[in-house]
Amino acid sequence: MNKVQPRTLPGFMELLPKEQVLFNQMKEKIQKSYEKFGFLPIDTPVIEMAEVLLAKAGGETEKQIYRFQKGDTDLAMRFDLTVPLAKYVTEYYNELSFPFRRYQIGKVYRGERPQKGRFREFYQCDIDIIGDGELSIINDAEMPSVIYNTIKELGFEDFTICMNNRKLLSGLFEQLQLQEKSVDIMRIIDKLEKIGEQNVIECLQDLEIEEENINTIMKFIRIEGTTDEKLKALEELNFTNETFLQGLQELQQVIKYVRIFGVPDTNFKVDFTIARGLDYYTGTVYETFLNEYREIGSVCSGGRYDNLAEYYTDRKLPGVGVSIGLSRLFYKLNELQALQEEQKSIAKVLVISMVEEPAKAIEVANELRKNGIATEVYLEEKKIKAKFKYADRLAIPYVIVMGEDEIANNTVSLKEMQTGKQETLSLEQVMERLK
Amino acid sequence: MNKVQPRTLPGFMELLPKEQVLFNQMKEKIQKSYEKFGFLPIDTPVIEMAEVLLAKAGGETEKQIYRFQKGDTDLAMRFDLTVPLAKYVTEYYNELSFPFRRYQIGKVYRGERPQKGRFREFYQCDIDIIGDGELSIINDAEMPSVIYNTIKELGFEDFTICMNNRKLLSGLFEQLQLQEKSVDIMRIIDKLEKIGEQNVIECLQDLEIEEENINTIMKFIRIEGTTDEKLKALEELNFTNETFLQGLQELQQVIKYVRIFGVPDTNFKVDFTIARGLDYYTGTVYETFLNEYREIGSVCSGGRYDNLAEYYTDRKLPGVGVSIGLSRLFYKLNELQALQEEQKSIAKVLVISMVEEPAKAIEVANELRKNGIATEVYLEEKKIKAKFKYADRLAIPYVIVMGEDEIANNTVSLKEMQTGKQETLSLEQVMERLK
Repeated sequence: MNKVQPRTLPGFMELLPKEQVLFNQMKEKIQKSYEKFGFLPIDTPVIEMAEVLLAKAGGETEKQIYRFQKGDTDLAMRFDLTVPLAKYVTEYYNELSFPFRRYQIGKVYRGERPQKGRFREFYQCDIDIIGDGELSIINDAEMPSVIYNTIKELGFEDFTICMNNRKLLSGLFEQLQLQEKSVDIMRIIDKLEKIGEQNVIECLQDLEIEEENINTIMKFIRIEGTTDEKLKALEELNFTNETFLQGLQELQQVIKYVRIFGVPDTNFKVDFTIARGLDYYTGTVYETFLNEYREIGSVCSGGRYDNLAEYYTDRKLPGVGVSIGLSRLFYKLNELQALQEEQKSIAKVLVISMVEEPAKAIEVANELRKNGIATEVYLEEKKIKAKFKYADRLAIPYVIVMGEDEIANNTVSLKEMQTGKQETLSLEQVMERLK
Repeated sequence: MNKVQPRTLPGFMELLPKEQVLFNQMKEKIQKSYEKFGFLPIDTPVIEMAEVLLAKAGGETEKQIYRFQKGDTDLAMRFDLTVPLAKYVTEYYNELSFPFRRYQIGKVYRGERPQKGRFREFYQCDIDIIGDGELSIINDAEMPSVIYNTIKELGFEDFTICMNNRKLLSGLFEQLQLQEKSVDIMRIIDKLEKIGEQNVIECLQDLEIEEENINTIMKFIRIEGTTDEKLKALEELNFTNETFLQGLQELQQVIKYVRIFGVPDTNFKVDFTIARGLDYYTGTVYETFLNEYREIGSVCSGGRYDNLAEYYTDRKLPGVGVSIGLSRLFYKLNELQALQEEQKSIAKVLVISMVEEPAKAIEVANELRKNGIATEVYLEEKKIKAKFKYADRLAIPYVIVMGEDEIANNTVSLKEMQTGKQETLSLEQVMERLK
């Protein structure tokens, strides 16, 4: 028989079980954290009608889409979880309660050129709060609180949630009568950290912005100090533009409530260079950096938008949300050996029989499982050394040995694999130990 | 702006949040149950190279595949989790430990004609144990134990795991020199329950099987009694065919160990009519029925196979596994109003502020979340009635009201939504109550 060479497509992440265990632990922690804030789960199809999925898309995104025909239907695979959310909220509007707080954790697809740490299939972990017509600004302060709790759950302490409000930038540009160049300027400012101040100035000059205006822009994004000092400096700019003033007021409110939500000042800051590429965002924007692993880039980003679903409905659906790109985050942390490695195995204990019939070993496993302890019985006929090696390779922390003595005395031998320490115990004692 | 009508593709399941909560609870229970037996998670891509995915497929399956080109690559979406497992085990053979016990819970795709309760995108929840060269028959007895624990976790008591061994049927056909018609006969026998005994006989006559042989086949599948009586009756057939005798011996071993694994006789039986359509299976086969909801069909099926990956490798990789088709099971149970509805909400409590600034409400929520209680704060400016209605629509079981009195006295008012009972308590008392 001719064999086919089994292989996985380039750009598609596939993990060995030990890594998968760690990946799943991260995914579960994110989910539990989102649920602690009462976000509701939804699970939309991976495939949608191309017309629906691409209602808004264009440019780079559209080129990356997996799009194909099945019968007469033009189909596409989702490339994010935001468009499916817009579809979902519009489609089931009458059956949902607002504010609609949903999380979705799922795979999305982008046929990008594969490169290290970029995947064509990857998990996004999204939360959004959608208002019906309006949505309190306090929701913008809850997001950093969810981010804070989630990143802490993932085991990190030293991280910074950076916040800005796009109305400050828009207002500034209006004040300087640079509205038309607004999107271009934001893109340049967004790159400040990457390209440096001098390059930003040159890029602004390339846009034919007057010297004086460049100075004003640079003065604005150079504002330094504590969060409160920055807010004060914004006031002292004495700008009169309404958009700017609204942005300032929103930012003040958000900062006030972020503190009430319990996010310490050490874990957030105002950063006027954060604009986010997408013109979709209209107010508060977020990026989150692990300070020890700054090279990963933002691990959790998002913002406030005025209209979730304007390409589906006239209904005004403002929202605020953030997203964690889990596959990339996992890949990068793994590469940097920065993963929390609490438990790399699923089974907590492997039961090994020293006698031919593993009946007693199975009975011990039954009891352990009844008590919630993940247990595996080694059922193959192999030498004892091979059985221990199996436990070792799977990183199972404990091995129980059932030999003639143990069976006769109604005891078990428990070996802790890391220390090599072996004890003869009653089954009850083992359960106490392993719980 | 021209609006696109947002809609979901026919045959694709999409649930409202309250149903999604129940669906996720089922999924999580299955996962936890699989993990209690030490199965390791894997997560393969939804898209594979068509050549790899369709190495073995053909006929009906191939027609249903979502297959398409992206650039020069011929791609296909997975239609089950078994082919990806075969790929995975062959691809990572050197890095895996055997027996390799894996679970995978994920979406698969089949472009079937949509009909009620049949989905084009659906979740499968698979476990398999793969041996390297050989695999102890005792693993065939562990499967019913996993099924038993999993179905019980899902809240059912009255269910039957039906078992057979295909070697009994194959051996019988060999004995009768009907090997060439073996696959056809098995398909007919498999339909016994659906079409009745008389139709089975007629179908066998259509295959031009002699009267005497039909009688022998019918005698075999008519064997009744307790499990032990059935095993005894098999022995008393005094067949000499080796395949048959091997099947008998395997079945005896499996039954013996199924009992040792703690599956009560009331939850399993031997059923000689179960053959499973696929010729892939070579030994033990399983089907599981909820006796109160027999119309759903088997909710968990599978069996033993000799070669997981013969189209990829010469290596012999025998295995045994079962699968739950979760989307269909959920749909059917929901339709029959047979779902366990423990908790339809994610948030356990909604905190409502009666004063304009919800600062105190947020602080209470912070504390509850710190103690692991899923909490939502109602942040919009609405009438108190609307806030309670929101809790009610979301089925959130408790509401905490923070008014001037509560803030002044450092207490909270806790209302249990189902009973309407309202109490003034300290925050500590509330946490005791809600934990």
